[in-house]
Amino acid sequence: MNIVLLGSGNVATHLGRAFKEAKHEIIQVWSRNLEHARILGKELVVGYTNDISSISPEADLYIVSVSDDYIADVVSAFPHPGKIIVHTSGSTDKNITGLSGVFYPLQTFSKNVSVDFSVLPIAIEAVDKPIETLLFDLASSIGSKPMNLNSDQRKALHVAAVFACNFSNHLYSIANEILEDSGLDFDLIRPLISATAQKIQNNFPVKTQTGPAVRNDQKTLQKHIQFLQHHPTLVDLYEKLSQSIINFNQKA
Amino acid sequence: MNIVLLGSGNVATHLGRAFKEAKHEIIQVWSRNLEHARILGKELVVGYTNDISSISPEADLYIVSVSDDYIADVVSAFPHPGKIIVHTSGSTDKNITGLSGVFYPLQTFSKNVSVDFSVLPIAIEAVDKPIETLLFDLASSIGSKPMNLNSDQRKALHVAAVFACNFSNHLYSIANEILEDSGLDFDLIRPLISATAQKIQNNFPVKTQTGPAVRNDQKTLQKHIQFLQHHPTLVDLYEKLSQSIINFNQKA
Repeated sequence: MNIVLLGSGNVATHLGRAFKEAKHEIIQVWSRNLEHARILGKELVVGYTNDISSISPEADLYIVSVSDDYIADVVSAFPHPGKIIVHTSGSTDKNITGLSGVFYPLQTFSKNVSVDFSVLPIAIEAVDKPIETLLFDLASSIGSKPMNLNSDQRKALHVAAVFACNFSNHLYSIANEILEDSGLDFDLIRPLISATAQKIQNNFPVKTQTGPAVRNDQKTLQKHIQFLQHHPTLVDLYEKLSQSIINFNQKA
Repeated sequence: MNIVLLGSGNVATHLGRAFKEAKHEIIQVWSRNLEHARILGKELVVGYTNDISSISPEADLYIVSVSDDYIADVVSAFPHPGKIIVHTSGSTDKNITGLSGVFYPLQTFSKNVSVDFSVLPIAIEAVDKPIETLLFDLASSIGSKPMNLNSDQRKALHVAAVFACNFSNHLYSIANEILEDSGLDFDLIRPLISATAQKIQNNFPVKTQTGPAVRNDQKTLQKHIQFLQHHPTLVDLYEKLSQSIINFNQKA
């Protein structure tokens, strides 16, 4: 398949690498930022531009991976009506004039960390059956698991991923800061983070919840809040998350 | 080593199994709750009691794994002064009259999930050098990594573990609930949870943070808050955690 990437961030970069590896042809990279377009174009050994009117008309598929705020603008400025153009956003509707569909890979893309596409669901939505088939084939060609989700389901998946992935990673950052403040190394806690993520691979997390909140161990909760007293933001998060654990536990 | 376990919860259970496997002799289980004492005693094929005055005087080491609220009571009722008695709590001081030390395994113990002790740090504190050596030897005998931490450092490690492990697991529960509400399966997100925990094994989490908050993508943040509008607790957590990510990012 001949593909043009519109965007040069983490999603465009990892998709570009995966498409190339699967022997698709990336024929051009466009980005609003010429330097970013150049860097990704250079990595993929293809032409690049920051001029949307110069986008090649020769591709089978145009993939827009820009931040949600600009998707509608990019689609509306796209100069080749009738060509297949999709976005990769979890939380942007399919109903944008001119848009052919959605190709949303559920992953956490960091530029310098490689991605295992073989376990990756890709949520697909398309305006017609031939486009849906093309997007399913593309997802399968890079080893991913394509599935039809409507825009509401895709948004639910995205919000769930923010909680399970983006917010968890931030809790790791908070843990690192607490350890550093006491002269301790983040290495101490890395195995525990692995074990926690591993446990829910064969269980539901509500069954594997441990810690003082689920035991309603008020003495420990109070000690921890006392320990965090000079960090009001952390006290607030500690209290809110502990209360939420207690509420879930009562419901379960 | 001859060991008596005082307690019958997750920590006592997993330590008991590990000690037995390492050919230590568990000679008795005590628990306030006779039925719980019986269950663990039966599993470990040893005697059990709920009468603290009946605890055997024959052990080399008595390990108290009860909830923090009761540690001081158990130590004070322990009938064999001069014997080595330690607790396994992350957040309880060493300075309890009669206590010989602390043996705190940093792990997330769920009764039916096996524990890999070989990657597990155990924080040790002791009132004298011979007891410290005995506790280091015990930790090494089950394949763990013993280390001296003072009570403040141990508490920091425990609080960090609550954020990185207990709270992350709760975020997985929230994600599961969001998916279920939209008729989606938790399996969709399990690979992402693995990938997120995997990424920080060789990176610091502040470097691997992804998602709308770290991009300050206000449009997506607003869409997600709108999506969660019927769950005020989740809106509150979403806003607080997103703001904390934005703050960390500005600091970094």
